[in-house]
Amino acid sequence: MELLKDRIKKDGKVLSEHVLKVDSFLNHQIDPELMLAIGKEFAERFADEKITKIVTIESSGIAPSVMAGLYMKVPVIFARKRKSLTLNDDLLTATVHSFTKNETNEISLSKKYLSNEDRVLVIDDFLANGQAALGLVEIVEQAGAQIAGIGIVIEKSFQEGAQLLKEAGLRVESLARVASLSNGEVSFVNENVEELV
Amino acid sequence: MELLKDRIKKDGKVLSEHVLKVDSFLNHQIDPELMLAIGKEFAERFADEKITKIVTIESSGIAPSVMAGLYMKVPVIFARKRKSLTLNDDLLTATVHSFTKNETNEISLSKKYLSNEDRVLVIDDFLANGQAALGLVEIVEQAGAQIAGIGIVIEKSFQEGAQLLKEAGLRVESLARVASLSNGEVSFVNENVEELV
Repeated sequence: MELLKDRIKKDGKVLSEHVLKVDSFLNHQIDPELMLAIGKEFAERFADEKITKIVTIESSGIAPSVMAGLYMKVPVIFARKRKSLTLNDDLLTATVHSFTKNETNEISLSKKYLSNEDRVLVIDDFLANGQAALGLVEIVEQAGAQIAGIGIVIEKSFQEGAQLLKEAGLRVESLARVASLSNGEVSFVNENVEELV
Repeated sequence: MELLKDRIKKDGKVLSEHVLKVDSFLNHQIDPELMLAIGKEFAERFADEKITKIVTIESSGIAPSVMAGLYMKVPVIFARKRKSLTLNDDLLTATVHSFTKNETNEISLSKKYLSNEDRVLVIDDFLANGQAALGLVEIVEQAGAQIAGIGIVIEKSFQEGAQLLKEAGLRVESLARVASLSNGEVSFVNENVEELV
């Protein structure tokens, strides 16, 4: 998605070879019009998947998900993150480790909003190690619902998340795929070249 | 806002005289089209206020804020909640006590996204005791920015938040004003009668 890649080039801050900060338009300050364009792009890419629900995780997944839900005319459910949860029969839960923050959280979602008739699009802002996305997939599968695909705003293709998800048989659509953050610069995966190979 | 009040009547769950659960369309599962209508309503009510930024708080404030930002063509910034923060010169912070959850959080917002030239609309999903809204106001004032108003999706008018904010000289626009949750039922403040008095 060129609009997003241009914005990352313009406003993204490369903090290290592994950390790209985009808190001026996605993670802290949010550009609503960019979110609308992102939502539209997800809706187009997953148009044939008969999606009934979008599942994301607080907080940065919410804005792009709500815009995708607007175009797809489906509800969005955001999983909550907690250090630890008191046992609750009404919740679907999974454990997610964040390598970036070096912390482990329980993520949870109320049982009543997913059923075995749902086809779910999982959306998140970043895909790095894939742990958050895998946790969301686990929760959706606990509900007996089907995963229609994973929609990612920014994929760090040099980390193993995308590979892990694809190996699990999941369709992954990432709107910007970062090949490297070396030398303080963002390089994207060259999608055109990839398609030819 | 009749659309919102009808939805609260239909899908809100009264858990006690103080607790209204709306997690089927606002707080956990989100209805994107309702959020769009809410965003439009905020934009109309604050149309003359020359707003340059919207400030909200994770997580449930994000969806209505992003839709308001879309109509108002301004960025949205969401404050983060943390149990406690390591001191950081780049952050504006305030302490917020939640009576509902009986916990105290630091809320924070990056200095670089607000300046003394900004006119800020503060948006939140609920207004009860007003502590979250007052914390957001405190942060905006630390930045030297002006508060143009407070936009609330659901006000519990039987708690003191709205009164506190108005006494502080702030314009408060609540899209649904709950007068009481007695007898397991939601009653709204009768806006028409109020205008006559």
